[in-house]
This record gives sequence, C-alpha cells and structure tokens, in this order.
Amino acid sequence: MDYVLGIDIGGTNLVVGAVSRDGQSVIGLHSEPTGAVHGANHVIERILGMARSTIAETQAALPSGRVIGVGIGSPGPLDTKRGVVILTPNLGWTDMPVRDRIAEALELPASLDNDANCAMAGEWWVGAARGARHAVTFTLGTGIGGGIVVDGRLLHGASDVAAEVGHMTIETNGRRCGCGNDGCLEAYASGPAIARRTIEALQAGAESSLPMIVHGDLQQLTAQTVYGAAAAGDPLALEVVQDTAKYLGVGVANLINILNPEVVVICGGVTKAGDRLFTPLKREVNRRAFKPAVQACRIVPGELPGTAGVIGAAKVFLDTHA
Amino acid sequence: MDYVLGIDIGGTNLVVGAVSRDGQSVIGLHSEPTGAVHGANHVIERILGMARSTIAETQAALPSGRVIGVGIGSPGPLDTKRGVVILTPNLGWTDMPVRDRIAEALELPASLDNDANCAMAGEWWVGAARGARHAVTFTLGTGIGGGIVVDGRLLHGASDVAAEVGHMTIETNGRRCGCGNDGCLEAYASGPAIARRTIEALQAGAESSLPMIVHGDLQQLTAQTVYGAAAAGDPLALEVVQDTAKYLGVGVANLINILNPEVVVICGGVTKAGDRLFTPLKREVNRRAFKPAVQACRIVPGELPGTAGVIGAAKVFLDTHA
Repeated sequence: MDYVLGIDIGGTNLVVGAVSRDGQSVIGLHSEPTGAVHGANHVIERILGMARSTIAETQAALPSGRVIGVGIGSPGPLDTKRGVVILTPNLGWTDMPVRDRIAEALELPASLDNDANCAMAGEWWVGAARGARHAVTFTLGTGIGGGIVVDGRLLHGASDVAAEVGHMTIETNGRRCGCGNDGCLEAYASGPAIARRTIEALQAGAESSLPMIVHGDLQQLTAQTVYGAAAAGDPLALEVVQDTAKYLGVGVANLINILNPEVVVICGGVTKAGDRLFTPLKREVNRRAFKPAVQACRIVPGELPGTAGVIGAAKVFLDTHA
Repeated sequence: MDYVLGIDIGGTNLVVGAVSRDGQSVIGLHSEPTGAVHGANHVIERILGMARSTIAETQAALPSGRVIGVGIGSPGPLDTKRGVVILTPNLGWTDMPVRDRIAEALELPASLDNDANCAMAGEWWVGAARGARHAVTFTLGTGIGGGIVVDGRLLHGASDVAAEVGHMTIETNGRRCGCGNDGCLEAYASGPAIARRTIEALQAGAESSLPMIVHGDLQQLTAQTVYGAAAAGDPLALEVVQDTAKYLGVGVANLINILNPEVVVICGGVTKAGDRLFTPLKREVNRRAFKPAVQACRIVPGELPGTAGVIGAAKVFLDTHA
C-alpha cells in the first residue's frame, strides 16, 4: 500500500510517521523534542532526520509500499498556498518556506497546513468525527487550537487563519491573554492558564495537597499536576478542573450556536480527566446552547491521542494532491 | 423577466415584494404590521392578501413577467426541509407548515428559511457581501440574528440552527438573556438591551436629555431614541452607543477569529448611527481579532435596508428550486 509521511511540528515536540493511504495504520512513528533553542535550521534538520528514519523503517517493513508525499502540520499563522510559516515565535521561524525545504530535501511533493487543522482532519478522517458533515475540534495544550469542518470541508477562511477558537472572547473585561486581548478562552482553559489559576488560589490561601506535591515550588505546577491531584480527590484541584470545564463549556456552546455541528471533539492530555471534565462541560453547554443545536451534537474526546496531527497532515496531503 | 415572490415574516412587520430573477429590482413592495395578536391563522391570511396584491401589481407592471415561486423567510427555529416553523412565540406559531400553506394557497412552489439567513443571502447576492466566498451578517433589532456564508454556501448546520450569533456568550457571568443563558451578545446589544442599559444608567443618576424626550416615562425609551439623542450630542446616549459598539466589536471579533470571513455586514436600523457606531466597533475588533484575519475583512453596513430579507428569501428559492 502507498503511504504518506505525516509531520506534526509542535513548539515542544516533533512527531513523524508514515500513514497508510486509508488512514488505518501508522508506521515508524517517532517523537522527539523540537529543540527550537538550537535555531530555526536545527528544527528543519531534525525533522529531516526523523523523516528519513521513518521512510527507511516503512520500506523495511513493507518493501512493496511507496511513500508518495509529505503532509506537514505546523503552528501558524501560515500560508497554505505558498507553503510558508509566517511567524512562530516558539519555533524561531519567520517566513520559513518549510514545505519546499522539506519537499526538496526528501524529493517528495509536500503540503502544509495549520497543526490544529491537521488534528481536525485526522479526527474527521478516521477518528471521533469520522463521517460528520459539520464538526469542530478544540485542541487543548500550551494554547487552545481549533479546527472546523463545514459541509464536509476543512475551513480555511479568507486568509488561512480560521478556527482560532482559543482567542474567542468569553469575558469582555477578563484575563489578559498572551495574544494581547482580554478574556480569551485560552487565558482561562489552556494548560498554563490552569496552572496560573491554581497558583493564584493557593496564594490566596486555598487548602490543597498541591504545594507538597511540587515541594513548595509553585512555579513547578502544571495542568497535569492539577489533574493528577483532582484524580486523588484534592478539593482545590477538583474546583479548578470544574471551573476549567465551565469555561470550556462556554467556548463549546458558542461554537455550537454559531456552527450547529454534529460533533465537537476535545483533544489533548486534559481529556484524560474523563467524566470529571466532560460532565460539567456538557452541563454548561446544555445550559447555554440552543436545544435543537445541543440535541444534534455529540461532545467527545479525541480518538487519536498523539497521532491526530500526523494522520491529519497526511490527509491534507491526500486531499490537495490526490 | 421572471420574478420570485419574497416574503419576510417578522414579529413586528411583514414585508412582501416580487424580486426579479437577477435580484436587481423589487416590484410591489408592501410592508404591514404582523398583527400576531389576532392569531396564527390571521398572520397567514394577511401574508396571502399581501402576496396576491404584489402578484397583481407585478402582472400589471410587467405583463410578460411570470412569478415562478415563493421564497419565505421566518424567525426560527424551523425545519427547512419540511418547510415547518417549529416554534415562534412572537408569531404564535407551533409546528406551522407555513411553506406548504402558502404554496397551496398561491399555487406556486415555495421555500422556507430562517429570516436572518435570508438577510445574509440578500446581502451576499446583490448587497454588501456580493462576491464574497466567506461572509457573516449580524442583523440587529429586537434580537440579534446572524447569517453565515462559508465557501460560497449559506451555512445551515446539522439541524438548521447555525448562525445564532446573538446567543454567543461574551460575558460568562453576565446579564441574563431572554433565552435563559447569561451573558449573550443579545443581552447587551439588541434594541431592548440598549434601552435597558440606558434606563439603568438614568436610574443610577446619569445626566441626560433623554428623560425630557420621553416626557419622564422611561419605559418609552427605545434604541432609536438613544441613537437620536446621541446624534444631538447627549453625553449619556453617546456613552451607551460607544458601549454598544464595544460589545458588538467583541462579537464581530469572535466571528472573525472563528470564520476568517472577507466581510462582516451589520444590518438593522442601528447602522444609521454611521461612524458613531462603526469607528469604536472597528477599534474594538482591531484590538481583539488576529491581525491577518482583521486585514482580510471589511466591516460594513448592509446595503439593502428594508429589503434584504425579501430579496434573500427569493434567492433561497432560486438556489433550492432552480
């Protein structure tokens, strides 16, 4: 069978794998730290090294298989037509022609799309949103990315920046976000925002096992720590998880009222919290969104943790080059 | 030339006209109070009377023209496929098969869509959004309706309730909205919300010419009164207009970040305020939305005041029956 190399470029990790043409299998999956501190070119070289390893492994495992192209997902803003990443401070890239640099080095055709769009494409192709005509993903991590499928097509918008769901205002005069705006969803429900809200509550005197867990160094607190403590029954951590679910519920309800999708997929490590996240999130959505829109919509965790971006990048390649 | 009868059903007024096949002219335009207090059937009878007058006038003015069908726009929720309005308290309708009742009485094929979708279709066909591949309208009145065009098609979503932009939460713990949710855009920037915010400020002691204008009866205050007083320089009215523009700016910025459209069209009487509305609205959008999305997007008043709904209803008929 033919394969497409999927490359998922993140500020923290790079993930590369060979995705079968039907999306059902991934071979030679590799994940490495991005190492952006070593410079823009270093990141490209590291990607190329991983890509060559994956291609070699795929050819060893399936001598009759061919790698026919490369799908690349990257943080944006970017220009899908020119294949250029315009500006990603996390990667140290400015106007980086990442698509053509990788295509030329590997001598394969390549595509470029936003990382959150790729996650949507993956979940829509073979994951939690498969078969949906209208779908939305929220990808929760350092930031909150989004992907939107409308009438069976990935939405790019007029200038390739659609689906920035993390920067929807949910509190007009709310918390300052990294983007400079006030009250973005991301300022409440991203990983760092969860840690920040927890630290503020501790500094205000809340009782919790969390300071002990991080040996008194609150700056070591992460969303993972908080979710772990919530699983162990820590009352402050449980409250933070509940509040996070509420904020996410506002964002999800807004997208449901605006787009009336059949499915909203929540991706990212935060979904490991399971019902502790999804029960209050759905309660908030029920309270806020229009009933005929809520009734038409499933809210589910992603089914491709760790590989949605790689699989979706390959899908974008197939859709643009098939 | 062939004509399509456009019918725009509102809680306050009914508007009917014959729209030429190219959307360039409207003949026999009539507007009458809806008269919903007289009952559900009365509204249908009134629509039929207006429709027959318009058809007669069109045939008198253009003996060679044919009326080929009827496009109907109505408040929702509704089912476009079955042609049924599910529930509109303002009209006293429950499961009203308005499309087939009108089609049978006039012996013409008919279509039904949401009134705000029809306004979008009109502005997109021959108004302020013509030619756009991605567009959004906000229709400001008693409520705030919306319409969305994605990739050159009107968005209906999974169950015909997409584009409820007025019920997007902009303040998580904000003002109670008529829909039961807290902090909807509509609870801040609809006509009644503008009046309510003004009355609250007056009751809190704000200086203004407004009480004199309504002879001391604050319940007579409307958004129109406030906009009129702002035009005359009343400081409280100016502040209310400015705040309204800010709230609308939050809603518009959210839609720009989510959909990345080429144009956002603001419809409704409120646009008569001109720069007093649009200057602070655009300032708020610039502050909040992503620069590459803001740069790609025009924010403009509707070009079809009073007829967008009629023209768009005709367009929906042509798109579904042509």
